[in-house]
Amino acid sequence: MTEHVQDSAGTAGPSGPSRRDVLRRGMFIGGAAVAGGAVGAVADHIAEHHDAGDDVEPFYGAHQGGVVTNTQQHTVIAAFDLHTTSRGEVVEVLRRWSALAAALARGDSTTVPIYTPKDVSNAYSKTTQVSTTSDSLEAWQVGPSRLTVTIGFGRGLFLSDGKDRFGIAGAMPDELVELPHFAGDELDPDQSDGDLFLQACGDDLQVVFHAIRSIARISPDVAALRWTQVGYSPSNKAGTPRNLMGFKDGTINSNAHPPADLDATLWAGSDGQGWMRGGTYLVYRRIRMSLEHWDRLQVPDQEKVIGRQKVSGAPLGGSDEFDALDLTKRGSDGTPAIPATAHARLAAPETNNGAVIVRRAFAYNNGTTQFTERWPPWRQALEYDAGLLFLGYQQDPRKAFVPINSRLAINDALNQFTTHTASAVFAIPPGASGPGHWVGETLFA
Amino acid sequence: MTEHVQDSAGTAGPSGPSRRDVLRRGMFIGGAAVAGGAVGAVADHIAEHHDAGDDVEPFYGAHQGGVVTNTQQHTVIAAFDLHTTSRGEVVEVLRRWSALAAALARGDSTTVPIYTPKDVSNAYSKTTQVSTTSDSLEAWQVGPSRLTVTIGFGRGLFLSDGKDRFGIAGAMPDELVELPHFAGDELDPDQSDGDLFLQACGDDLQVVFHAIRSIARISPDVAALRWTQVGYSPSNKAGTPRNLMGFKDGTINSNAHPPADLDATLWAGSDGQGWMRGGTYLVYRRIRMSLEHWDRLQVPDQEKVIGRQKVSGAPLGGSDEFDALDLTKRGSDGTPAIPATAHARLAAPETNNGAVIVRRAFAYNNGTTQFTERWPPWRQALEYDAGLLFLGYQQDPRKAFVPINSRLAINDALNQFTTHTASAVFAIPPGASGPGHWVGETLFA
Repeated sequence: MTEHVQDSAGTAGPSGPSRRDVLRRGMFIGGAAVAGGAVGAVADHIAEHHDAGDDVEPFYGAHQGGVVTNTQQHTVIAAFDLHTTSRGEVVEVLRRWSALAAALARGDSTTVPIYTPKDVSNAYSKTTQVSTTSDSLEAWQVGPSRLTVTIGFGRGLFLSDGKDRFGIAGAMPDELVELPHFAGDELDPDQSDGDLFLQACGDDLQVVFHAIRSIARISPDVAALRWTQVGYSPSNKAGTPRNLMGFKDGTINSNAHPPADLDATLWAGSDGQGWMRGGTYLVYRRIRMSLEHWDRLQVPDQEKVIGRQKVSGAPLGGSDEFDALDLTKRGSDGTPAIPATAHARLAAPETNNGAVIVRRAFAYNNGTTQFTERWPPWRQALEYDAGLLFLGYQQDPRKAFVPINSRLAINDALNQFTTHTASAVFAIPPGASGPGHWVGETLFA
Repeated sequence: MTEHVQDSAGTAGPSGPSRRDVLRRGMFIGGAAVAGGAVGAVADHIAEHHDAGDDVEPFYGAHQGGVVTNTQQHTVIAAFDLHTTSRGEVVEVLRRWSALAAALARGDSTTVPIYTPKDVSNAYSKTTQVSTTSDSLEAWQVGPSRLTVTIGFGRGLFLSDGKDRFGIAGAMPDELVELPHFAGDELDPDQSDGDLFLQACGDDLQVVFHAIRSIARISPDVAALRWTQVGYSPSNKAGTPRNLMGFKDGTINSNAHPPADLDATLWAGSDGQGWMRGGTYLVYRRIRMSLEHWDRLQVPDQEKVIGRQKVSGAPLGGSDEFDALDLTKRGSDGTPAIPATAHARLAAPETNNGAVIVRRAFAYNNGTTQFTERWPPWRQALEYDAGLLFLGYQQDPRKAFVPINSRLAINDALNQFTTHTASAVFAIPPGASGPGHWVGETLFA
C-alpha cells in the first residue's frame, strides 16, 4: 500500500518524491505519509480531483482570488503571529500554504504538508507528541464550493518592535499603514492585527473552515493562530442582499458593482513597491451593530440615518436603487433630501475625492455579550454581538479608507448604532502565477 | 394608506382589530402599526405570503416542528430569563411568540407584535424611548427556507429560588431534571440554562436569525435574552454528514435515522404531566472539540477512540456504515474490535438498556479563545472554540441522557478531545393545534 502513497511534505522518509518535486508539480495526491493498513485504506478512498468548472475558482493568476471573485456564501478569516527569526522558515510556510490552498481550491482531499522546523522554540510542539499529515476529512465529498484562499501580510512581517525581522523592512509598502485611532473605536487587540492573514471564502462553511484549519496546521510552531472570525453572506433571491439592519448593502463600494477601472482604484501599480504590483490592500473592521436599538427606531428615521429608502434601496429623493445620489436636492421643507449626517452621503465617492473601496459584505453573529452602547441612553444589556465584517480592498488606504472613515467616525449618524470592535490592515500580494509558484515569491525570492 | 394597515398587536390605537381578533385569525398582515407615508410605502411592499410547499414546514400540529423535521442547514438557539411576577404576562408573551413563529414559518414578512407590560420593572424600556413594530426586513424575499421555531420551558419557569413563580410549580414534570455534575464538565453558567427557550432552524441563516431576533423583541421587558448560539449542519452530498472530527455523525441516535417507535422513546405519553403529552425533553450541550489535538492523532488511533472507521463510518470489525455494532467481536490479537472505551460502544443503545436519543447534529464555530486542554499534555494555547451542538430529544432524560452521559463522562476515550462548555434542559410542550392556539396553552389555559 505504501508504495502508492505520496509523501507530499518530504518529512516522512527518503523513499517519496522530495517536497520540492511535489511543489513543482503543484498538487498533492490524496494519501497519508505513514505506513499501515488502516491509513492505506484512507489513501485508497480520499483521492478526489475536480476539473475547473462552475464551482472551482482559480488559485493561480495575476491577482489573488477572493477580491473581485463573486462573493461566496461563507467566510472564515484568520490571522497568525510568527514565532520564528528565520526568513527561510517563513518562506517554507508560505510555499506550503500556497500549494495546499491551490489543491483545496480544486476540491482535492489532500495530505497536509506538515512542516516542523529544526529548532522548535514555542510551546506547541513541545507539548504534542504525535502529528499526522492526513486530511481531516470533514469536507471530503462536499466539493470545491468555489473556495478561494487569499493570503495577506501585516506590518509585523516587516517590523516587530522596530526590528527588521527577516531583512525585508525596506520592502514594507507605505500603503501598509498603521491606522490612526478613529473616534469611537473600541478595538479588541486580541481580535485585531497579525503578521500573516488568511481569508477563505466558499459556498459551504464546512469547506471554508476545513481550508483554514488545514492550512493553519501546516506549521503552528512557525505561524500560530492569533484570531479567527466566521462570517456569512446574506442571501437575497431578489437582488442586492440586505445587511442585518435590513438595508440593501453593496449598491456601491462593493465587489458586486466594482469601479470600472480597477487598475486605478484597486490593484497596486508601478508607484509603490515593485513586488506588490498586481496586489492590493485590505482593511478589515469588525463592526458590531446595536440591533436591539436599531429595531426600535421607526423606518423613516432609519432611512434618514442611512440616506436611502429601506425597501427599494433608492437614495432619498430618488426612486431606483442605482440612481445617483443627488446631494444637492432639498425637500419641501428646505432641508437636504439626504441629510448632512447620512451614511450614504458621507461614504459616497462624490464626497471623498472619488475614492472607492471594493468591499466584500459579510455578516457575522458571535452570539450575545454584555455591552454598553456608546450613545444615549447608554443602555447596558446583554446584546447580540452581530453585525458586519467590513473587508475593504483598495489601492491605497491612505487615499480611501483612512480619509473616508475619519469623516464617518465623527459625523456619520450610523455611529449611534455601530461600534468597530476589531481591526487590521494587510498587504495582499499579487497572485502566484502557476503551479510551483507561491504568494510572497515576489517579495522573498 | 393606514386604513389598510393591520394593527396586529393592538397597541397602536383603537381603530384596528383587537389583538385577540388577529391572534384568532392566526396571522399577521405585512404592515406597520404607525401612520406616515414612508412607512406606508413599507406596508405596500412587504406583504408576502407563501403557501405550503417544499420549503414551508408546518408550525401547527400535534408535535412541535424542529424535532423530527429533517435537519436544516442552520440553527440559532436562544434562552431567556423572565423578568416578571405576572402569569398573565407570560401567557401574553407565549401567545405572541406562537403566532409570530407561525407567520415566520410561512415566510410572511410580518409586523412584530411588540408587547409592553403596564408595569415595566426592568431596565430595558426605561432607557429606550422609541419602539417600532415594523419587520426588520433583512430576510424579506429570501423565502420560508423550511424555518421551524421550537419553544421550550426551563425549570426556572416553574421554580425560581424555590418559589412557585406563576402558580404552576405543581405542574413541573419530573422529567425536567436538573442535570448532575458530570466528570469533566466545564460549564459556563452565562451560556447555560434559562426560563424559556427558542430553537430556530432553517436552510438560510438570514431567515433563522431574523426569526430569533423578531421573536426576542416582542417583549424584552418580560423575557430578556440570556444567551444565543449559532450552529450549522455540515453538508455531505454523499451521505451522512461528517462532524468537525471528520467522522460521520448521525448514523444512529439521530433524527436522520430515528427509532421506529417514537411514542416509546421520544414523545411524552400518559405517564407524566398530562399537559406534556405529545411533547418531549431536550438536553442541550455545547461540546468543544480540541481540533488541534485531534488533528495530530493518526487515523487508526482516531478510529479506536470513536469505534468506527473514518472513511466508511462502519463499526470497527464491520464493513458498512449501517452494520450493527458487534460488541463481542475480537481481533486477531484477542482484544475487542471495538475497544472498551470507544465512544460508539459506550453510547450504543445496546449498552444503555436500549435508550436512544433523537439528536439533531449541528456544528458550531465561535472563533478562537485561550484554552487549557483537560488531558495530558494539558496544552495551553489559543485554540478553536468549535465543535458540536448536541441537541438531544428524548421521552425521559432520566432514562436516556443522564445514565448514558454518566458513563461517557467517566469512560469515553473521546473525553481527551471534547469538553462540555454549556448545558441546559428544556421541556418541549406539544405543538399548538392550529391558528389561535399557542405553545404552552395546555399548561396555562
